[in-house]
Amino acid sequence: MQILTPHTEVVLKLLLPTHSKELFHLADTNRTHLREWFAWVDHTSSESDTQQFIQNSLSKLCGMTGFNCGVWYQDRLVGVLEIHDWKHTLYRAELGYWLSKEATGKGIMTSAVQGLTNYLFQELPIHALEIRCAVRNEKSQQVAIRCGFVLEGKIRQGTVTSQGFEDVFLYSLLREDWTRQHDTANQ
Amino acid sequence: MQILTPHTEVVLKLLLPTHSKELFHLADTNRTHLREWFAWVDHTSSESDTQQFIQNSLSKLCGMTGFNCGVWYQDRLVGVLEIHDWKHTLYRAELGYWLSKEATGKGIMTSAVQGLTNYLFQELPIHALEIRCAVRNEKSQQVAIRCGFVLEGKIRQGTVTSQGFEDVFLYSLLREDWTRQHDTANQ
Amino acid sequence: MQILTPHTEVVLKLLLPTHSKELFHLADTNRTHLREWFAWVDHTSSESDTQQFIQNSLSKLCGMTGFNCGVWYQDRLVGVLEIHDWKHTLYRAELGYWLSKEATGKGIMTSAVQGLTNYLFQELPIHALEIRCAVRNEKSQQVAIRCGFVLEGKIRQGTVTSQGFEDVFLYSLLREDWTRQHDTANQ
Amino acid sequence: MQILTPHTEVVLKLLLPTHSKELFHLADTNRTHLREWFAWVDHTSSESDTQQFIQNSLSKLCGMTGFNCGVWYQDRLVGVLEIHDWKHTLYRAELGYWLSKEATGKGIMTSAVQGLTNYLFQELPIHALEIRCAVRNEKSQQVAIRCGFVLEGKIRQGTVTSQGFEDVFLYSLLREDWTRQHDTANQ
Amino acid sequence: MQILTPHTEVVLKLLLPTHSKELFHLADTNRTHLREWFAWVDHTSSESDTQQFIQNSLSKLCGMTGFNCGVWYQDRLVGVLEIHDWKHTLYRAELGYWLSKEATGKGIMTSAVQGLTNYLFQELPIHALEIRCAVRNEKSQQVAIRCGFVLEGKIRQGTVTSQGFEDVFLYSLLREDWTRQHDTANQ
Amino acid sequence: MQILTPHTEVVLKLLLPTHSKELFHLADTNRTHLREWFAWVDHTSSESDTQQFIQNSLSKLCGMTGFNCGVWYQDRLVGVLEIHDWKHTLYRAELGYWLSKEATGKGIMTSAVQGLTNYLFQELPIHALEIRCAVRNEKSQQVAIRCGFVLEGKIRQGTVTSQGFEDVFLYSLLREDWTRQHDTANQ
Repeated sequence: MQILTPHTEVVLKLLLPTHSKELFHLADTNRTHLREWFAWVDHTSSESDTQQFIQNSLSKLCGMTGFNCGVWYQDRLVGVLEIHDWKHTLYRAELGYWLSKEATGKGIMTSAVQGLTNYLFQELPIHALEIRCAVRNEKSQQVAIRCGFVLEGKIRQGTVTSQGFEDVFLYSLLREDWTRQHDTANQ
Repeated sequence: MQILTPHTEVVLKLLLPTHSKELFHLADTNRTHLREWFAWVDHTSSESDTQQFIQNSLSKLCGMTGFNCGVWYQDRLVGVLEIHDWKHTLYRAELGYWLSKEATGKGIMTSAVQGLTNYLFQELPIHALEIRCAVRNEKSQQVAIRCGFVLEGKIRQGTVTSQGFEDVFLYSLLREDWTRQHDTANQ
Repeated sequence: MQILTPHTEVVLKLLLPTHSKELFHLADTNRTHLREWFAWVDHTSSESDTQQFIQNSLSKLCGMTGFNCGVWYQDRLVGVLEIHDWKHTLYRAELGYWLSKEATGKGIMTSAVQGLTNYLFQELPIHALEIRCAVRNEKSQQVAIRCGFVLEGKIRQGTVTSQGFEDVFLYSLLREDWTRQHDTANQ
Repeated sequence: MQILTPHTEVVLKLLLPTHSKELFHLADTNRTHLREWFAWVDHTSSESDTQQFIQNSLSKLCGMTGFNCGVWYQDRLVGVLEIHDWKHTLYRAELGYWLSKEATGKGIMTSAVQGLTNYLFQELPIHALEIRCAVRNEKSQQVAIRCGFVLEGKIRQGTVTSQGFEDVFLYSLLREDWTRQHDTANQ
Repeated sequence: MQILTPHTEVVLKLLLPTHSKELFHLADTNRTHLREWFAWVDHTSSESDTQQFIQNSLSKLCGMTGFNCGVWYQDRLVGVLEIHDWKHTLYRAELGYWLSKEATGKGIMTSAVQGLTNYLFQELPIHALEIRCAVRNEKSQQVAIRCGFVLEGKIRQGTVTSQGFEDVFLYSLLREDWTRQHDTANQ
Repeated sequence: MQILTPHTEVVLKLLLPTHSKELFHLADTNRTHLREWFAWVDHTSSESDTQQFIQNSLSKLCGMTGFNCGVWYQDRLVGVLEIHDWKHTLYRAELGYWLSKEATGKGIMTSAVQGLTNYLFQELPIHALEIRCAVRNEKSQQVAIRCGFVLEGKIRQGTVTSQGFEDVFLYSLLREDWTRQHDTANQ
């Protein structure tokens, strides 16, 4: 089950248990790259940890609180894009993402986020999406900005990275922002 | 989240709770047509029944025993195609399907089943798929046959319809059947 | 909790966690014999695996989708007879069974299946029962045939054994078959 | 699935959802008789309440904390005998029971309790069983006494009946009590 | 189970099912007052809705993702203070609160939040707490400010009230903010 | 979340997963002392066992069948006081407790039980509380007696200790006993 993106070579697929091996391998070969920002890396020591992660993702989908997509580029798994903290009473959810080191710098995640954003606003009763990026993580911020997300605040010590607590920027994209961009793009 | 089919106007989407209204409406306006074959029709009396059906479908996905796709034709929901009784130790699963009356006779379900079959054999560790059709239901059999499924038996009184217990034909498609068809198609 | 059979020395008992030790021992001392047909043998390496199997069986009973009986012969556990894939909307279920090597050739499983079949048709809203046997497994087929099950098809590559995918015969016993046999037997 | 008793016409069967109709009818036609002692009677207003009761009973079996048997006399359901508060660390459980008005005075429950007691001590790692009877309920006490249970205390206001809080007698039967009785009976 | 606050007449108690009646009554007699800000008011039409709310709160506690306290003032329930979205990997959680109309303007919620804040930082591995208030809701903001929370952003259309989507202010209190306040207060 | 007791230095707190380390350490340094009476000691070999114990305790709270409090004395964890077997239809529950060796002989548990008893009778629909103590465990009996519990029976072989099955005394405290004590105390 996939979600198409504006870039024909970038495809999102719902992560299923059968992806465990490929996903664990991706994380395992990018430990240094990922450890910089993500504490989960050091708790992922075998394929069964990844399988549990994917199972938890399906449980989230079952409760409609989020889900995780793998990001495929030229038919190879290169990262993860997740929707989490989906709050139906507020019509809001949050996006999170990571790419393998090798896949960065090609606009892949920007396409992936655009694809997921289009899917969510077109198909689901979502009113706004949020992205949080560490203040120090400029690459991550670039994805949010390129996808039209608007900076709304700086949350002190809002994430935990290899450097300890760090400040994060909070961005959001309203349905009306998204509609305006699409109208402009289509003119 | 969608699964593409050979027919560009036929798209499968994972059924989510947000589809409840549209799906209930489809069933509700096709009661006479569906009651002929499906006992569940008369137990589906409100949108909340459909919501429960979709929730159960997500629970099946969560346990990886199956899932339900809506079939969209020209951007309108016209039926359901489900995978159920997915048995991982046997690498087998079973398909079931229905269309609205209006949507029959256009090859829609044949495309849908081909799309799902391609997805399952390409992306998942499936070795064989089964379809069961009432002996009296020739339209349903045509879908199985057009998709290359092979008749393997007649199960006496294997389904319950508006006419009581009826015999069913059992068809299956092996991975090797599917590979051969695709090789032939691509020559 | 037991189910009586036509043979006074053959008794079925609902498997409970307290049977784990005895059942694991039985499987453990019949590995070569069972491995021929059953892939689960090599995933059963300690008593706790058997305990999990029995717990899963109770969960199936709780959801009324099946249950597992131990087969006792002359007060010793000699095999397992299970009912699975019980589908209430179709009033059908499937039987599966195995015996220790030592216990084969004495008609024990035939009595066990007859006992379970009698119980199911007498006490529960079951309309038909199915048995699947590998085409190569003639002993298993003999049990089905002796109990009056009727061959309805050959499912290609329908099971996974030590030899890989193998074809299976599909048998079924309708309530009316069973009634007829009993009337004949009682004349 | 049944448990045999010393009286050939008294049989215990594990209560299954398929017994809901029969069991609800029994309770429904014995409301005055049962209301005297059991508060649940007035919360059982339809067959679906009974179905829920039976489902809860299966859940208890699944967790091995107890289960409920129907008591059949001359092939008719006449009461319930349950095992509850099964504490595995203490090797103890508690019995509770009721009969329809019509079925009282025939020794049916005494046979039923003896049958269940024999089953529990013979087949399961139970060291002691308890029965609690309202001080005012002499018939219930007679069952405990006839089955060899020993009075161990009077619990003030230990039950809630139609008369409010009432004192209960606490009886127990140790495995060694049961063994002694059986040895005596077999001499 | 209670949490003390700096104000001896303000006490927090973990909400239990036994509080359903009292809490429903409080909400029911404050519908106009609460509907201004909270969409849940119109979905709370009977005591059983409140019971479900409290049950969900206990489930959150069971999963350690949050819990709900009732706020008692002079031994009467006057509001609710909840901790939700407790994210253990980030050591953060969010507070939410409401008071009956009658109880506002007395500093009750300020004491309640101080009490809960003290409890969380003293007893639990919490690094930061968040509060979100509608921009239009000045009373709610006053509570956050009086308790030392720092404004960090304005989230566009971040809540849904009787007026539709509204902007919210996001405040947070770091453990170091809290420590500094306490040191100052104790000098 | 705490429950106050008559002794200002004795405080009860709901056990949370964050207490695992401290509680495991307490049990681990009191093995000889605790093993005398409690079989669970030898099944508690690491902090994760204690974490599971606390998680189970929260699950019991979630189902309102009981909960576990830590006993703090002079701000140090010194024991556990639990409420279990809470039966809502009977308005009864049972108390159990243990202290570290060092903490015995100071009246700590007597204060703890009085605090919990006061909380339960004042805040919850409890009609009676029970305590069971091994006949050989005089210290435990002293706590029950000092708190006004009344002896109601001797249950043969009602517990399992390091010495095997042992008899237990059963005590109970009715709401009316508790009220009378409090009236007397307040005269």
